[in-house]
Amino acid sequence: MQERVFNFNPGPSTLPLEVLQQAQSELLNYKGTGMSILEISHRAPEFEEIVTQTEALFKELAGVGDDYRVLFFQGGASQQFALIPLNFLGTNKSADYVITGSFGEKAYKEAKKIGKVNVVATTAAVGHKRIPEQAELKLTKDAAYVHITTNNTIYGTQWHYIPETNGVPLVADMSSDILSRPLDYSKFDLIYAGAQKNLGPSGVVLVMVHKKMLERVNPDLPTIFSYETFAKNNSLYNTPPTFGIYMLKLVLEWIKKFGGLTAVAEHNQAKAALLYDVIDEDDFYHGHAEAPSRSYMNVTFRLANAELEKTFLQEAEAQGIYGIKGHRSVGGIRASIYNAMSLAGCEKLATFMRDFRKRNG
Amino acid sequence: MQERVFNFNPGPSTLPLEVLQQAQSELLNYKGTGMSILEISHRAPEFEEIVTQTEALFKELAGVGDDYRVLFFQGGASQQFALIPLNFLGTNKSADYVITGSFGEKAYKEAKKIGKVNVVATTAAVGHKRIPEQAELKLTKDAAYVHITTNNTIYGTQWHYIPETNGVPLVADMSSDILSRPLDYSKFDLIYAGAQKNLGPSGVVLVMVHKKMLERVNPDLPTIFSYETFAKNNSLYNTPPTFGIYMLKLVLEWIKKFGGLTAVAEHNQAKAALLYDVIDEDDFYHGHAEAPSRSYMNVTFRLANAELEKTFLQEAEAQGIYGIKGHRSVGGIRASIYNAMSLAGCEKLATFMRDFRKRNG
Repeated sequence: MQERVFNFNPGPSTLPLEVLQQAQSELLNYKGTGMSILEISHRAPEFEEIVTQTEALFKELAGVGDDYRVLFFQGGASQQFALIPLNFLGTNKSADYVITGSFGEKAYKEAKKIGKVNVVATTAAVGHKRIPEQAELKLTKDAAYVHITTNNTIYGTQWHYIPETNGVPLVADMSSDILSRPLDYSKFDLIYAGAQKNLGPSGVVLVMVHKKMLERVNPDLPTIFSYETFAKNNSLYNTPPTFGIYMLKLVLEWIKKFGGLTAVAEHNQAKAALLYDVIDEDDFYHGHAEAPSRSYMNVTFRLANAELEKTFLQEAEAQGIYGIKGHRSVGGIRASIYNAMSLAGCEKLATFMRDFRKRNG
Repeated sequence: MQERVFNFNPGPSTLPLEVLQQAQSELLNYKGTGMSILEISHRAPEFEEIVTQTEALFKELAGVGDDYRVLFFQGGASQQFALIPLNFLGTNKSADYVITGSFGEKAYKEAKKIGKVNVVATTAAVGHKRIPEQAELKLTKDAAYVHITTNNTIYGTQWHYIPETNGVPLVADMSSDILSRPLDYSKFDLIYAGAQKNLGPSGVVLVMVHKKMLERVNPDLPTIFSYETFAKNNSLYNTPPTFGIYMLKLVLEWIKKFGGLTAVAEHNQAKAALLYDVIDEDDFYHGHAEAPSRSYMNVTFRLANAELEKTFLQEAEAQGIYGIKGHRSVGGIRASIYNAMSLAGCEKLATFMRDFRKRNG
């Protein structure tokens, strides 16, 4: 049986080994209840405690106060693409979308089905190689909200500033870089993140929302589509994905133990630097993202041709380096190095990259 | 540390021990991949195989052919309450709802927000103690669909016939009795079931839908709300709840190994009989459901007064009998005895019931 590999998958992605081990050790009997966490009622005090603690722990790590709620949804970020305009767009206003990649494009397209939307900047013309600067954002004065994607998994770009929206609520898809660095979370009015990259397994979406947004929710929605339903019921209106929330809590505890966001960010920068350094040494590897917009979460690059990339992928896999095939819209290679990826994994990949270059350069 | 208890929770609920043990044993390394099932990409061949096999296995157990699709959603049955009218109700037709409990009532209320709906029968006036007979259903001739709830978790009633709808599509919430008995599944045009009762953990919803229904889907919906999206993409339009689907597959394999639906039903009937026999022996325990409508999944009963019920619950728990407090809308006791509950669990509860009666009768 193969030992654990280095898993660079873009999501679902690698989880901290300690977290997996804890889940495994208590899978038949959660904290002496005589039941698996998978079998415990979502109405049981043991589970309500998990929800409460997970909300508190996230707020502690993000550094936000009681003017925010942390809620647990299902349906992935894709469902948030629809829920956000359904809840907040209304009929009198329009919403601003900044398109920096495929998921931002999808979010925009779903919102367009629901109401009036504006593309206030897009980097499609340059293959989403960079993040637009503040001056490029043609924001609408009275928009219902501005929507951005803080990290672009497919293209390997990341916002390194928080845009100024002049009082318009800022909404962000943070699926692929949530809790990966210190950030002024209080500048955001709503953020959402599918858990399967930085927070846990797939099947649970974390939403952090400012309470003032909850007052603006469309009151005529199906109950299950309303953020107010989730806020009012502490994410327990109906049966939540209990195991996913439990895992999310374990991951947050791991982040805290790691030293919080400052320590996590140092680790992530060191990991990314290992790979970008190899890319920058000469022009054997071509980084997709422009340097100032580079992501610390997804490192994307091409080789001279598709044949060479195929060989690269095959040899990498033979060495226990998995999941680095680029998305079809960019091609080439993508190493997803979320919080749980170790420095050792990136060192191994960097060493392999240098070795491969030596043999094929 | 407490040994595994008998867990009569209504959902999330007890899972087969063998299933939990298998999940535990391969949690760090799924089939020699060097990754946890929680870490494997939903685009990996290993996971696509799980989805394909789970669909095939469900169809085999349910005895339906290629005119059906089996899809995996998120959001619980509560989300289906909204998705069904959004997809199938349209503006020209109305939908028929039979209300036999709280969840049917919720399904009706959500549909009412979306389009024209008719209550074609309700047992609310008799505390949902029974299932209406065919003659009581005032079906609408040209309805978009008829919606029923095949088992009513809270009230402990179950449909023991499939209503004749004269060509109108039959839609059923089977959350609490799916795959619990042989049934002509081909009489249904769409069924859905939150997994957390008979199929696995919470966070995944199984939908079995006839292909002709997929042609009727409203084309103007947000992508993530359309059944067609899920069918066209084999439930992989976006990241699915991978662990939940994996667990569901293990549970289906367990059902097959158990002997399929005939064997499961015999087991379920034997379990239910143990409890109903005690109830029927005298009038110490008052069954909520009328005998012909009794559920094989949820056994609901009252004792003479709330004080006695409290003592009953406390003593039961001290003996390792968990999760039998009735829902607040019925009160009293509810034993949820889904497929994975053992005969030994029901024997233990029956023995306790007789003993408690002897001491308090």
